[in-house]
Amino acid sequence: MTDRKYTAGMWVFGQIIDRYATDGYNEPPSTLDIIRQAADAGLVGMDLNYPWPEPDLSPEDVSAALTASGMSAVCITPVIYGRHFRSGSFSNADAQIRRAAADLADESVDVAKRMGAKYVKFWPGQDGYDYPFQVDYATLRRHGVGGLGAVCDNHPDMQFAVEYKLKEPRNRLLWSTAAATLVAIDETGCDNLGVVLDFGHSLFAKENPAEALSLLHSHGRLVDIELDDNYREWDDDLTAGSLHLVETLEFLHGVRQIGWTDEIKLDLFPYREDKGEAVRQSIKTLQRLEDAAERLDLEQLGRIHANHDAMGAQELVRETLLR
Amino acid sequence: MTDRKYTAGMWVFGQIIDRYATDGYNEPPSTLDIIRQAADAGLVGMDLNYPWPEPDLSPEDVSAALTASGMSAVCITPVIYGRHFRSGSFSNADAQIRRAAADLADESVDVAKRMGAKYVKFWPGQDGYDYPFQVDYATLRRHGVGGLGAVCDNHPDMQFAVEYKLKEPRNRLLWSTAAATLVAIDETGCDNLGVVLDFGHSLFAKENPAEALSLLHSHGRLVDIELDDNYREWDDDLTAGSLHLVETLEFLHGVRQIGWTDEIKLDLFPYREDKGEAVRQSIKTLQRLEDAAERLDLEQLGRIHANHDAMGAQELVRETLLR
Amino acid sequence: MTDRKYTAGMWVFGQIIDRYATDGYNEPPSTLDIIRQAADAGLVGMDLNYPWPEPDLSPEDVSAALTASGMSAVCITPVIYGRHFRSGSFSNADAQIRRAAADLADESVDVAKRMGAKYVKFWPGQDGYDYPFQVDYATLRRHGVGGLGAVCDNHPDMQFAVEYKLKEPRNRLLWSTAAATLVAIDETGCDNLGVVLDFGHSLFAKENPAEALSLLHSHGRLVDIELDDNYREWDDDLTAGSLHLVETLEFLHGVRQIGWTDEIKLDLFPYREDKGEAVRQSIKTLQRLEDAAERLDLEQLGRIHANHDAMGAQELVRETLLR
Amino acid sequence: MTDRKYTAGMWVFGQIIDRYATDGYNEPPSTLDIIRQAADAGLVGMDLNYPWPEPDLSPEDVSAALTASGMSAVCITPVIYGRHFRSGSFSNADAQIRRAAADLADESVDVAKRMGAKYVKFWPGQDGYDYPFQVDYATLRRHGVGGLGAVCDNHPDMQFAVEYKLKEPRNRLLWSTAAATLVAIDETGCDNLGVVLDFGHSLFAKENPAEALSLLHSHGRLVDIELDDNYREWDDDLTAGSLHLVETLEFLHGVRQIGWTDEIKLDLFPYREDKGEAVRQSIKTLQRLEDAAERLDLEQLGRIHANHDAMGAQELVRETLLR
Repeated sequence: MTDRKYTAGMWVFGQIIDRYATDGYNEPPSTLDIIRQAADAGLVGMDLNYPWPEPDLSPEDVSAALTASGMSAVCITPVIYGRHFRSGSFSNADAQIRRAAADLADESVDVAKRMGAKYVKFWPGQDGYDYPFQVDYATLRRHGVGGLGAVCDNHPDMQFAVEYKLKEPRNRLLWSTAAATLVAIDETGCDNLGVVLDFGHSLFAKENPAEALSLLHSHGRLVDIELDDNYREWDDDLTAGSLHLVETLEFLHGVRQIGWTDEIKLDLFPYREDKGEAVRQSIKTLQRLEDAAERLDLEQLGRIHANHDAMGAQELVRETLLR
Repeated sequence: MTDRKYTAGMWVFGQIIDRYATDGYNEPPSTLDIIRQAADAGLVGMDLNYPWPEPDLSPEDVSAALTASGMSAVCITPVIYGRHFRSGSFSNADAQIRRAAADLADESVDVAKRMGAKYVKFWPGQDGYDYPFQVDYATLRRHGVGGLGAVCDNHPDMQFAVEYKLKEPRNRLLWSTAAATLVAIDETGCDNLGVVLDFGHSLFAKENPAEALSLLHSHGRLVDIELDDNYREWDDDLTAGSLHLVETLEFLHGVRQIGWTDEIKLDLFPYREDKGEAVRQSIKTLQRLEDAAERLDLEQLGRIHANHDAMGAQELVRETLLR
Repeated sequence: MTDRKYTAGMWVFGQIIDRYATDGYNEPPSTLDIIRQAADAGLVGMDLNYPWPEPDLSPEDVSAALTASGMSAVCITPVIYGRHFRSGSFSNADAQIRRAAADLADESVDVAKRMGAKYVKFWPGQDGYDYPFQVDYATLRRHGVGGLGAVCDNHPDMQFAVEYKLKEPRNRLLWSTAAATLVAIDETGCDNLGVVLDFGHSLFAKENPAEALSLLHSHGRLVDIELDDNYREWDDDLTAGSLHLVETLEFLHGVRQIGWTDEIKLDLFPYREDKGEAVRQSIKTLQRLEDAAERLDLEQLGRIHANHDAMGAQELVRETLLR
Repeated sequence: MTDRKYTAGMWVFGQIIDRYATDGYNEPPSTLDIIRQAADAGLVGMDLNYPWPEPDLSPEDVSAALTASGMSAVCITPVIYGRHFRSGSFSNADAQIRRAAADLADESVDVAKRMGAKYVKFWPGQDGYDYPFQVDYATLRRHGVGGLGAVCDNHPDMQFAVEYKLKEPRNRLLWSTAAATLVAIDETGCDNLGVVLDFGHSLFAKENPAEALSLLHSHGRLVDIELDDNYREWDDDLTAGSLHLVETLEFLHGVRQIGWTDEIKLDLFPYREDKGEAVRQSIKTLQRLEDAAERLDLEQLGRIHANHDAMGAQELVRETLLR
């Protein structure tokens, strides 16, 4: 049986709010509450949005709370998608806001170091555009890719990663797909910039997550993995394995094949569910799928692959996975 | 030239917030500020979410403010999609919450009467489900359709309307498409229940809005019309006519054909734009398109329709619409 | 263990061709070859496209071949989507072609009676339109719905059914979703007209198939069920249960709940696979899922439904379905 | 007014067939008939699928016919997507078929040289997979990208291009998006391999075509441009400018900005329309849009771009484009 450990984003336990339930789906918990709840749910690490709401809470305070709960910081994710950055961070039309994004990134590197986080994660959800003719694409790209690359250049001893997404909140995002992100990373020339592959973002970008995993790994750019589920048309952030059992199994098989023994991160938005329960159900389903991945007859799979044998694949999946 | 009047939802001028920019895209204005801004943008009526934020503001106060600005109340839209109703209103699993939805609807009828609004609008955005096996569909339907119908039955002198939408915030909504809404309305047996057709919701539900308009009109269930635009995959609520010029023109032609001389309502979420400007640009584009609809050679269109002549249609649109 | 019987469309074993591989994915078999192959794959009935390619083959000949193979005719499906009907059958702009559609339907009724088929199936895949302004929607509807209803009226002793689909080959189809089909059937006023629910068409139409099943059953219009799978964006006609295990399980649970003990039909297009193997793998997976549906703890499911308990649903599915 | 010249694919005038209308939407014309019809429609060049149906027709015969009609060969497109290659060409599981793909490509290079075509185009529409676990992604990629690259390496004096597409006929294609194609081309290390950007494929791949154009141009990989239209969910190959007027205008503005004075190719499938008329309507609409692109106030557009001014963009488009 798998001894995989799991981590999650802070947001899983935070207050969820959207454009309709503007009073929020739940009360806002404190950062320390979130840490306690995450530990209770069995997690060992957190993706931390920075700055967190409490200005008096130092990185050392948060580290201490994590340690006390048996957890650690996975990464620092600068909040480059709040009101100040609503029209873009590194790609903003306003040079001052581009500068503010770089400053917040620099600060996040400092926080990551003080907390021993593995990497700084960029999620440029406001970097893009909404309407035709709104931007000059070459300029947007120069600012958005170049500015982010400059931060990576300035901190050669820190690992960075971009979590790509097709859209939301912006209608069109610059870092949209696995391949688009590889092209952009290549443009930066940075060795310390990689990719966080979110299973749900990949489904939603019309990719097959297992294929995206293979691509990113073969280019040496895979930094972290996030699991969740959706209906392939939006980033629904449903519990892992709730819908796409076969695709999640194939993804976890890929994770084994590339020798990924690190934690797997959960990226959930349990709008109406108990957050701890959403994490626990996700982990239970993932463990069951990892066990199935371990049981897969690799010789048989090799024969299937040698012949692109779709029907053999269906039989293997059924007999391995289902009661 | 068209003398069409335009109305809008209160939310167009309100604070927009989403799950990422939880500090909001702008400061929250007061209800009276919203009314002033709407009037300044040239609107003549408002779709009012009830209750509004200010508990001390009476329906008569809001009516007075509307009148002072040369506007009137289009409809009252009970907020059956906030935190209390996050897992459903009329279709909630909890009978007390279903009761609360009915109570708020009753109250909205009272407010609508006091304000002289034309109808009470239901937007059941939390009524549905997110996961397989989560609900029993027949029960969900019985509560969700039956409960809403009971409100209509209780107020035979008030007009009601449902604004359907495929999803969001719930992953699956009960009132999802024009046809699904007709079927459900028929199940209620209510004569005073109709449909608000939102152009963007129709695009997003994989309908052709002009065809949906024809269907709803032919069944005598069309209560109001909302305009906006999107990329066909989500309810982006972009400015009207910003993307789908041809489809919007066809829709406005349909609006003329059915003899709709009432106002047209705007349903926009100008996250990053000046709200007044978003309204003004929408109106200018719609006026231009209505002028084109007026210029359409109906004899030629008749010949096109008689032959399902797609190429003739493209020529007619191009020559009528483009410089 | 389930003793479900399975049927399939003739096309599953026929020559598959598309707009790129215009030389076909395989050689064209004869109708009698198709029947033998279908029987070999374990099927007990066939959905028969009429006319079949061989003009000399009488309905009695085909019946005899079916009987000799231990099979029977499920339904007759008039080919109202070939070249002659490429711009529509009942809704065609040309009255002569509308008449030809009605004539072929009449002939299909006769064939169905001679073969003891349960129903005549309409699949109006060319009835709709492709471009804005191409058709007048009310007229299209009058012809397309009215003409089909007239056939049903003329044969009160025959059962008819429409298989709805969102699009393909036409970009927009008149009989597009379960609800749209219910509305149209209601317009015809025919008691002998119902619906064939294709799981894949339902996924692709942005419905949840289990919910569509419940809706059609509650309106008394469910005539037959087809199984297959796809990526939710197109009618891929992949083998049943190859992708959507949870949704297929929920659908089969629904099938049990409504007391459907008839056969289930397979609608596959095995472009590159051995056709018999595609049928066998589909059946094996469906049997496994039907067994799981039988094992579902209905008391636990009742509690889940009573609370709209999504996390309980995930647990129940996992523990019932997965090894 | 623009003096743009237009070309098209041979298939626009060929017999169209699909999986339902297997008797074809029209009679199959000869290659020489196609050339005459194309010239009559005002085209100056053809994308030629090779081999064409007539085995006795030499490249010189076709060249002579083109010249006689005032046209020339744009590119040779080897038919690596017919029955023999139904399970893949360069990425096929069978080494003999991979070899056959390379042989046909070599032959196409020879034909291209004999006909003076500008490039050899690969459209690897069968290279990919359909089901989870069917292929090993690294191997598929090694064969599919490597094999195609080897052909380019073997013919350093010939220009090659890949036309990417998200799917169809295969459910998942290897050369899926602009960025995925750039990554793969980079893997080949070939200087003589570029991209054909099809507007419709780009829409359908959830890209913005104008942004894809900018990306491919900035990487020096743009070889040709194809125009058409669709509903963003499938490669409908509707007439150019029939739906997405604003996006097509923005694309044509981009075409001007990068200094593209070459022809633009049409990629249409006029299933039910007169083929010549489909070409003529496409050209008329594109000319109108190119004229509008020429009229765009570039200073105003510069100010819009400097501020990411969406509302200014809508105003500029409206005032430039609409009557």
